[in-house]
Amino acid sequence: MTATSKGRARAAPPSAAQIMRGDRRALARAITLIESTRPDHRVEAEALLEALLPATGGSIRVGISGPPGVGKSSFIEAFGLTLIAAGRSLAVLAVDPSSARSGGSILGDKTRMERLAREPAAFIRPSPAGGAPGGVARRTREAMLACEAAGFAVVLIETVGVGQSEAAVAEMTDLFMLLVQPGGGDDLQGIKRGNVELADLVVVTKADGALAAAAARAEADYRAALGLLRPVSKHWRPRVMACSALEGSGLEAVWRAIEAHREAFEASGELARRRAAQAQAWMWSELRDGLTAALKENAAVAALATRLEGAVAAGEITPGTAARQLQEVFLGTAVGGRKRSARS
Amino acid sequence: MTATSKGRARAAPPSAAQIMRGDRRALARAITLIESTRPDHRVEAEALLEALLPATGGSIRVGISGPPGVGKSSFIEAFGLTLIAAGRSLAVLAVDPSSARSGGSILGDKTRMERLAREPAAFIRPSPAGGAPGGVARRTREAMLACEAAGFAVVLIETVGVGQSEAAVAEMTDLFMLLVQPGGGDDLQGIKRGNVELADLVVVTKADGALAAAAARAEADYRAALGLLRPVSKHWRPRVMACSALEGSGLEAVWRAIEAHREAFEASGELARRRAAQAQAWMWSELRDGLTAALKENAAVAALATRLEGAVAAGEITPGTAARQLQEVFLGTAVGGRKRSARS
Repeated sequence: MTATSKGRARAAPPSAAQIMRGDRRALARAITLIESTRPDHRVEAEALLEALLPATGGSIRVGISGPPGVGKSSFIEAFGLTLIAAGRSLAVLAVDPSSARSGGSILGDKTRMERLAREPAAFIRPSPAGGAPGGVARRTREAMLACEAAGFAVVLIETVGVGQSEAAVAEMTDLFMLLVQPGGGDDLQGIKRGNVELADLVVVTKADGALAAAAARAEADYRAALGLLRPVSKHWRPRVMACSALEGSGLEAVWRAIEAHREAFEASGELARRRAAQAQAWMWSELRDGLTAALKENAAVAALATRLEGAVAAGEITPGTAARQLQEVFLGTAVGGRKRSARS
Repeated sequence: MTATSKGRARAAPPSAAQIMRGDRRALARAITLIESTRPDHRVEAEALLEALLPATGGSIRVGISGPPGVGKSSFIEAFGLTLIAAGRSLAVLAVDPSSARSGGSILGDKTRMERLAREPAAFIRPSPAGGAPGGVARRTREAMLACEAAGFAVVLIETVGVGQSEAAVAEMTDLFMLLVQPGGGDDLQGIKRGNVELADLVVVTKADGALAAAAARAEADYRAALGLLRPVSKHWRPRVMACSALEGSGLEAVWRAIEAHREAFEASGELARRRAAQAQAWMWSELRDGLTAALKENAAVAALATRLEGAVAAGEITPGTAARQLQEVFLGTAVGGRKRSARS
């Protein structure tokens, strides 16, 4: 135990060994450490992740999104219970940049998935508190690595569709699943446009009772629509299916589709290539975010950036000129070999 | 005239006044200047663009893309001639990051649009030579500003769909048009997945002769598919239409749709908001590109980046650790308040 500056004893950071043994409390503490913005915690988190890295990579990484009201929690719970009944373990994480620190997020909310939360083979974690969206996504990706090291068969990362969070989740997972309403696509219920590119699997929910016929029609409509698009990979054609969390129907078909995707991607080597490319892309995007954050932390540069943003929006200066001025002030060097201008 | 280092006399840079008078040779020289990577040319180009900026903003900015073989050049020529017959002027630019300096790009190739190229009211410019895709897009955006200052009613920016060029073109235009084949969506002809998000207008080409019925079916199919998606703006629902460059049919309908989009966006103030947001986003993306370029120009950092990319891809180090190391070496300062590590 070490004393904190507040005088309270603090538990030692969780060890990689504990996590790799599947110790849930250690895993939860590791994720809390990962989510912390304190610089000393970042150092510890980084060291822990490096120690866990060799044990990662063994889960199926699935992203899931859908509009409000589509039944995401019901689906995740019913689907999760199906997995567990078949002997697998499941971690559920979330990316919700809008969650306030005190209010918490409705995603990964155990009260909405009570039965699943009680299962020993399930681990549910709410989204990290909001902040820079890039920061939330980074912490969730790192939490995913910790869950993998802890031995979960499936890691599900849900997102509520704020800003670019679906793209971020798709970029850290192997397969991206979109839930859609049986009512088809009116304004509020259609697929968010950027998600069409991302979806490997489209699942129509609530295919039961009075909505069964509508669900079947929606399934056909989405299948026709996706058929008009060029596939992203030659190893997978996006699939559309319907399910009912209430009746428990269609959930095993969803799992079989996920397994089929996994097999196709592993056999072709595409899974390894995809994950390697994702990791590299994450390095560059974290570097860019880090440089931008460092820039904004520099008070003089941040003030200049705000002024220049306004000037650019008002059409008083070109974006290129503004960018060059910011870069010169930030790096303290001229850009492109020119003499650094005296302007600031 | 000023002497160059090669001993040849060089014409003075084009003046903003010449360009704003509509002088085509001056405009062409301005775009050549904008495309140059020489630092002294960048200084001149930046000064010229600042001088032109007050005269920009008056064109309708249209992005256009479609798969190879869809008939883009035929469409642009026929559509352009329609515009010109109605008394408007048209500039055609291109973003084609794959164009080699010597081979040139097939986009904006006047030989494929001979009749249009002969029209005084038309200005056609091939894509800048390939290089960093961000660089090509930036130069095209700046060329667009020069064309606007020269007084063109419409600036059309075409792209062939390499990498992220459609997204870049959509981010510099008011409206994005996708051309699609009448055969509907088999693997090679369907809409590239990321483009669904971008399309304000989908135009089925070759709606004539033996393909007329297929074109009508494709039009209906794409309309149904787009109807399943949530609209991006409340001021515009994406439209689908068919046309024939050969017969000259449907082209005025395309123009009316562009005008309708323009009216809706101007009346609601969305055009101004969109352009201001685009300009700000361009500032940040140019800054990020500039910082990344500066990083890669630093030999020690570039070598480290290559090593770390490999380590990240191989799962030996986390992307976050790699990014932090690169940032520290590049900026020469510790990240997040920690002591800078001795590692490099």
